[in-house]
Amino acid sequence: MVYRNIARETYAEAWKRIQKLANALESLNVEPNSLTRVGTADWNSHRYFEMYFGIPSMGNVMHSVNQLLPPEQILWTINHAEDKVLIFHKDLTPLIERISPELKTVESYIICTDDGVLPETKLEPVFEYDELLREAPPKYDFPELDERTPAGINYTTGTTGLPKGCWFSHRAVVLHTINGISGLLQWTPEGTDLHFSIIFVLTPMFHSFAWGIPYIAAAAGLKLLLHGRHDAVVAMEMVKRERTPKNRPIFMAGVPRLLMELVYHPKFVEYKEYFKDAQYIVGGSMLPEGLARKAEEEGMRPTTGMGMTETCPAMIGTRYKYHMFDWPEEKKFKFRLRTGWNDSPLAEVKVVKLENMEEEVPRDNKAFGEMVYRSPWCTLGYFKDPERSRELWRGGWLHTDDLCIWDEERSIFIVDRTKDVVKSGGEWISTSTLESIISAYPKVKQVAVVGVPHPEWDERPIALIVSTDEYKGKVTEEELKEYLMKRVGTGEVLKWWIPDKFFFVDTIPITSAGKINKKLIRSEYKDVFK
Amino acid sequence: MVYRNIARETYAEAWKRIQKLANALESLNVEPNSLTRVGTADWNSHRYFEMYFGIPSMGNVMHSVNQLLPPEQILWTINHAEDKVLIFHKDLTPLIERISPELKTVESYIICTDDGVLPETKLEPVFEYDELLREAPPKYDFPELDERTPAGINYTTGTTGLPKGCWFSHRAVVLHTINGISGLLQWTPEGTDLHFSIIFVLTPMFHSFAWGIPYIAAAAGLKLLLHGRHDAVVAMEMVKRERTPKNRPIFMAGVPRLLMELVYHPKFVEYKEYFKDAQYIVGGSMLPEGLARKAEEEGMRPTTGMGMTETCPAMIGTRYKYHMFDWPEEKKFKFRLRTGWNDSPLAEVKVVKLENMEEEVPRDNKAFGEMVYRSPWCTLGYFKDPERSRELWRGGWLHTDDLCIWDEERSIFIVDRTKDVVKSGGEWISTSTLESIISAYPKVKQVAVVGVPHPEWDERPIALIVSTDEYKGKVTEEELKEYLMKRVGTGEVLKWWIPDKFFFVDTIPITSAGKINKKLIRSEYKDVFK
Repeated sequence: MVYRNIARETYAEAWKRIQKLANALESLNVEPNSLTRVGTADWNSHRYFEMYFGIPSMGNVMHSVNQLLPPEQILWTINHAEDKVLIFHKDLTPLIERISPELKTVESYIICTDDGVLPETKLEPVFEYDELLREAPPKYDFPELDERTPAGINYTTGTTGLPKGCWFSHRAVVLHTINGISGLLQWTPEGTDLHFSIIFVLTPMFHSFAWGIPYIAAAAGLKLLLHGRHDAVVAMEMVKRERTPKNRPIFMAGVPRLLMELVYHPKFVEYKEYFKDAQYIVGGSMLPEGLARKAEEEGMRPTTGMGMTETCPAMIGTRYKYHMFDWPEEKKFKFRLRTGWNDSPLAEVKVVKLENMEEEVPRDNKAFGEMVYRSPWCTLGYFKDPERSRELWRGGWLHTDDLCIWDEERSIFIVDRTKDVVKSGGEWISTSTLESIISAYPKVKQVAVVGVPHPEWDERPIALIVSTDEYKGKVTEEELKEYLMKRVGTGEVLKWWIPDKFFFVDTIPITSAGKINKKLIRSEYKDVFK
Repeated sequence: MVYRNIARETYAEAWKRIQKLANALESLNVEPNSLTRVGTADWNSHRYFEMYFGIPSMGNVMHSVNQLLPPEQILWTINHAEDKVLIFHKDLTPLIERISPELKTVESYIICTDDGVLPETKLEPVFEYDELLREAPPKYDFPELDERTPAGINYTTGTTGLPKGCWFSHRAVVLHTINGISGLLQWTPEGTDLHFSIIFVLTPMFHSFAWGIPYIAAAAGLKLLLHGRHDAVVAMEMVKRERTPKNRPIFMAGVPRLLMELVYHPKFVEYKEYFKDAQYIVGGSMLPEGLARKAEEEGMRPTTGMGMTETCPAMIGTRYKYHMFDWPEEKKFKFRLRTGWNDSPLAEVKVVKLENMEEEVPRDNKAFGEMVYRSPWCTLGYFKDPERSRELWRGGWLHTDDLCIWDEERSIFIVDRTKDVVKSGGEWISTSTLESIISAYPKVKQVAVVGVPHPEWDERPIALIVSTDEYKGKVTEEELKEYLMKRVGTGEVLKWWIPDKFFFVDTIPITSAGKINKKLIRSEYKDVFK
């Protein structure tokens, strides 16, 4: 395990520090087997890894505080989870100070620093993470726990209403991990290089157990790269330094935006050789066609996976089935842009009619339905929220709120969030499909399509475009419409799906989870047809 | 799934037949959720696969009847398990007829035939398997079961006393399967070709769930080859027919004897090209150096794994750790002759002092100790045998009765069964080491070393030798002793380990599990030093 160029630990060394952490927490009145919630908000680090193991192993609950939420929501989740101790990165000191007067349950603060120097702060009592560990006894006698003991709680931000706390038992986390090892090993699209020996989790550790990767890395004995607060140059430097020899199998995971930041980075060319054949699994949002082509041109291997905070979070992915290895390259490429299929024997997925969840939609890649799911690592419900828990699990299946199509391979493509889908003249338009195709236009770097109110059609799609640096100010609505018309010709798009208006912008707003903030865009552009 | 050239089923088709089997059993008063034991004794077939799933899924228990046991032990296990229905291959009709007067609980007999023709028999009521399925309704509503419901019972033959019934829950079988997928995928020694798409289980399905492979194959969606009663030519024909293209990754599993029967078979040369790069995992006994070299010369990739009936049965194996890929070839080869190391995050293994199991022996590859183990797929105890269950689990660990050494990689080598080890002049001699080295002598095909009583040294080792066909009658005790003296020079053998006598024989007796029957050899040769 490597944290920037700051720390390097074997798992055996981490185990010693995990025991110290448990002792340190106990000294702050976090009793073993007490299901005490400990709030955690470091950037990706060896320290956070230690919390992933130390807090649950004591019989307590790790609450990963999503530090990218608005302050009032961070405050709300900490109070809702009833965190007794808060561990956070020095960068967050001003934020925590600001909300601290309203924190109802926090008794102690632990600040993570790289330099060992506590910031000036009025928080108290306050401790420095490493100093606390240095002073803690090196042995901790972890209790034997029932496997259904809660281990972690992760809040998910609905687009409406307050965040929801998804809690997971040790059983869920362990099964997710074991399943993840198989999944990871089966990933490669080319049927070779399956021995990933390095895993680089770009997604933040305060999000959904960082997709389970810290647990998977430890369980499978892989070298785990942790790069602190995201910074593309730091990430590239770490790959260069840690991937020796250069062709050593490496697996990377993150949202599409992080892949985009890498491959479009002006310095990427200096590091390109170290990214050769790097398997990059995109989750959180669709892998847009343009980004996938760019990453492939740069020598990487992008693929897709999908999950939800509610599912611990892994669900489906796009590894090939055996017969697909013989498919033509372009067909394989297109397959990898899909959302994925369920390759886990412990999970079940289906796409059902919105009006009747007992009935699956045909596997014809056309009929829209909702993806529903179940596996032993799903959250059993939202913390202290029985009503929304029942809603999530209605009919005995976990509802994703994702509108999908699927094909005879049971391979799913999410056409939209049920709340993001555009309904125009009574018919659905898939904004995901439009975004993927528009992203493949060479002058386009990023795109968002949303539906906004329209007097005649109820809703019509509009597109926000960020052009590549090279073509800034040199892309027009006309050429994009013309490009899309060609894709009408190939049957990928219907003519009336083409957005009515294109807006050329510098940035597209994103949510705390790194996804396009469509809610915000819809609200900003709600009057364009009025 | 392919059974000889007789049946070919997709898993979806098997699922239909599994439902028919459940209905057929219910028509024979095997009620759902009743934990009724059903005795099963087919050769490897699609039918047996259906029993693997159908019987436990009903909430009943599959008792795999080890048909290679002596008849009185078969009788004993069926009565002990209280089987209500007995399903067996036509070949076994005379045997079942012979013991039937003493069967206390069996109410119906189902005979498996390939031709649909029941043999003449006085057993009754008697049914033909396929005919029964043909008449059964195609839908069965399987009950929801608690995961700790017993699913299967497998008897293990101690060298002393009556067989012991190891029972396994659905939970154990499922976790063993999921773990097995990771294990399988991680197996390849060369870091490539990990997408095994064909799996050929040579080991019989009435042994320890055929090492879990039928379940693993179904869960991972692999093509499963089943070849009925073992026959090397049938096996070679199946590989030739089913492995298309010829370099399609294939994984094979069986005891060393089955590998030996393949690679030393006079017809192997005709099929050799189809076995290129076939990964063959040897279990049940040590992989002898001579056999491993021969298999490698023939283009195959032999490796080792180890398990016990008590552990469902997989335990440890010899896949490489990442740093080993760079080892010299001969060092890698020697590593693969070891018994293995634990690569499962859900299992724990240690080698402890015989006199004090709290203390591990040093990882110096020299100190002898017993391997103890635990994982969630171990049997919780022997059926109706609390005393031997307690003995198995003394101190909270499952005792293997295997005498081992281990090294700094935590890689274990079984030097002997604790009961097979030779103690000469107060010091231990590893018969496994001697056997492995002698097997590598070019004129030797098979070897067994046992300790027999000696007036002066308590015990001394003797060796039984089967020479290769080419050197029949042309190998001498003198040359073997001289060869071993050279290995004394390299430090692999101690001088006083060299067997005092060599006996040249046509065959070496094996047990019902396909292992060398050392108990029988010891008894036959007990007087050689008297």
